[in-house]
Amino acid sequence: MSWVLVKDVEDYNGREVTLKGWVYNKRSSGKIWFLILRDGTGIIQGVVLKNEVSEEVFNKKDELSQESSIIVKGLIHEDKRSPGGYEIVVRNIQILQVAEDYPIALKEHGVEFLMDNRHLWLRSRKQWAILRIRHTVYYAITEYLNQNAFVRFDSPLLTPNACEGTTTLFTVPYFDLGNAYLSQSGQLYLEAGIMSLGRVYDFGPVFRAEKSKTRKHLTEFWMMDAEAAFVEHDENLKIQEELIRFVINAVLGKNRADLEILDRDIEQLQKADAPFKRMTHKEAVVFLRTKGSDIDDNSDLGAKDEVLLTENSDVPIFVEKWPKEIKAFYMKRDKENPDLVLGADLIAPEGFGEIIGGSQREDDYDLLYKRMVAEDMPLDEYQWFLDLRKYGSVPHSGFGVGLERLVQWMSGVVHIREAIPFARTIYRLRP
Amino acid sequence: MSWVLVKDVEDYNGREVTLKGWVYNKRSSGKIWFLILRDGTGIIQGVVLKNEVSEEVFNKKDELSQESSIIVKGLIHEDKRSPGGYEIVVRNIQILQVAEDYPIALKEHGVEFLMDNRHLWLRSRKQWAILRIRHTVYYAITEYLNQNAFVRFDSPLLTPNACEGTTTLFTVPYFDLGNAYLSQSGQLYLEAGIMSLGRVYDFGPVFRAEKSKTRKHLTEFWMMDAEAAFVEHDENLKIQEELIRFVINAVLGKNRADLEILDRDIEQLQKADAPFKRMTHKEAVVFLRTKGSDIDDNSDLGAKDEVLLTENSDVPIFVEKWPKEIKAFYMKRDKENPDLVLGADLIAPEGFGEIIGGSQREDDYDLLYKRMVAEDMPLDEYQWFLDLRKYGSVPHSGFGVGLERLVQWMSGVVHIREAIPFARTIYRLRP
Repeated sequence: MSWVLVKDVEDYNGREVTLKGWVYNKRSSGKIWFLILRDGTGIIQGVVLKNEVSEEVFNKKDELSQESSIIVKGLIHEDKRSPGGYEIVVRNIQILQVAEDYPIALKEHGVEFLMDNRHLWLRSRKQWAILRIRHTVYYAITEYLNQNAFVRFDSPLLTPNACEGTTTLFTVPYFDLGNAYLSQSGQLYLEAGIMSLGRVYDFGPVFRAEKSKTRKHLTEFWMMDAEAAFVEHDENLKIQEELIRFVINAVLGKNRADLEILDRDIEQLQKADAPFKRMTHKEAVVFLRTKGSDIDDNSDLGAKDEVLLTENSDVPIFVEKWPKEIKAFYMKRDKENPDLVLGADLIAPEGFGEIIGGSQREDDYDLLYKRMVAEDMPLDEYQWFLDLRKYGSVPHSGFGVGLERLVQWMSGVVHIREAIPFARTIYRLRP
Repeated sequence: MSWVLVKDVEDYNGREVTLKGWVYNKRSSGKIWFLILRDGTGIIQGVVLKNEVSEEVFNKKDELSQESSIIVKGLIHEDKRSPGGYEIVVRNIQILQVAEDYPIALKEHGVEFLMDNRHLWLRSRKQWAILRIRHTVYYAITEYLNQNAFVRFDSPLLTPNACEGTTTLFTVPYFDLGNAYLSQSGQLYLEAGIMSLGRVYDFGPVFRAEKSKTRKHLTEFWMMDAEAAFVEHDENLKIQEELIRFVINAVLGKNRADLEILDRDIEQLQKADAPFKRMTHKEAVVFLRTKGSDIDDNSDLGAKDEVLLTENSDVPIFVEKWPKEIKAFYMKRDKENPDLVLGADLIAPEGFGEIIGGSQREDDYDLLYKRMVAEDMPLDEYQWFLDLRKYGSVPHSGFGVGLERLVQWMSGVVHIREAIPFARTIYRLRP
């Protein structure tokens, strides 16, 4: 590379370099003006001194609008007062393009306007910081899994049948084979994968054609599903806790500057890196009622319940052993109480809600078969899934992590639409 | 974990351990029998000696069918003659499930039968090895990119418009917003991403509703698209070459045993790790005609041309500077000959065909606008894409790598359907 990235300028202190990027801001004070340059890897202040550059270069300040693209030559110089600790004393500025009036000024805009201009809004500091945190979260998840003998196993998105329910599926006409449906979870395929590889995961987009318009719902979002042979309920929770704490540490270690840009309460994240709490669904219901919730014995937790449940907890809370009626057919029953399943949801603190759902899976052919019959599922479509209980069935468990939910929590953003480059919601398919 | 994975047995030499897995094979010889156990992380031979176990345990050999799930206790023991260098002297065997007659015996089966039973076929040694190579290839790609300042930027799959053409798109009815289409490439979105992050990539499934039924086509496959600001044509090729050589080295370093299972010619892969060749499209056409091809001046390379082109080359070949008529509207024209574009395809040796397509992108608003008008594209749908040339346009380039094509080449498998867990083709959506 014939130029230097802003993130690397500390390696070039006292040296003349070329930087390439965009004008983020500028301000003037007589014989000196300051150019704030961003290049995607960082932001640096350029100092332009009337006495040290040609008149032509000095006068470029009048020409340069926000987001103009430029190539800057100058001397890197450590300066503790400067935002990144370094500045560049400018020798020359080459203008690639003077940007037209940039629609997103450094001020407040309405959300619809920003989402209509998402292709530009992405350049704003906060959006930039969130995307960098998203990168860290993604690779912290895969790093933990790879270190723990999980193998990547990409499950298909075009599926002939639904994993759970059919009312919230996107339909895709598929050649002469009728309709395909966009996957909501790769779990069933992963259960085949563990029989080959022991521990597997996928990590890709999944789809829910839900008409929800909350701040936690997207129609297209990224999910990591993990599945492990011979892992039972307790160990399943242990893996999940280790994984989430690994992610917290990665973000705290790598994205401190981004968290500051976002005004994230870093102490809250640090406090979440401690042993997670665990309560049964029944205990959660009793507790929530003392807090004023009108939740039923056999109800899922509502968004308000999730907030109430965690409002005095620094760490995430596992809610486990759910009534079988409100959980999926494939969950294994609790030996001690067959009305409950060995499933758990993990609820993040600070009101960020559910970030993981998981369970031990039913590994007995006959029990699974009966449940599928009772739920009126198309047995021929699922025969391959039943086969897994016929040829060397083993106890196994798994869970799914919603990437955007986790990014939302880590970065502290209020609305999930900012946790993904181009959000898709019930009312938005563009840009 | 309360048991040991086969991949880790060398750390337990001389110690008693518990292994959990499936019966891969067994053979008997009087007072001794051998149990071949696989657990997803490796395969190990168990030795069961009549004198050292109870009669009950010794007699389990009659009960254990292929793919039965078991828990084995025994002593790990280094043995150079053993396949993995270690064996386990069995003390106890606990049977979890005696598998029913396993449909895939250790013999040859027809492809349709195997694909119908893909959920089981995955357990076969060769399929297992290919999936492990796929894992390595995926993470070698992301590791190279992450080391080189690229940031993950997941582009959406539900899109209102097509990147290239519309005849090969899968259609998805999208609430009240009309039809969405499944993405064929995230490139256009990545071009917005570089203006925020400098260098970005996505890596997820993409879709082509093509009626091709060749050994190189899937309707759902995984693609990595990378895009970088300020990178021009020559550097674009340099990045691609470094990336592919990084992948080759990763596979050679981490998957030697898997390559052996697949009878892959390892020397061929080693030879491919050398400077790549480069020729213009025009040079390629002239060369191919000397080889007997009837390719036109303005034609894409056919599958046979790709084979002919590389048949005497150990390394991949870049074919660059294509006639503008046969490449996409967004490719930048060659300054020296405006009838050509600064695009390149990378053709793998050994007949594995195209693995990368890339180009420098047109960064001039007016030129791009004119081309879009000429191609009769819906300008309002692409205004956001044009905007990127209005607010600080910069020279930039990118490319897309087909994961399954690369896995096919690395592992030497003839048909691409084996390079992905559950292949989707024009005739196959199940299991």
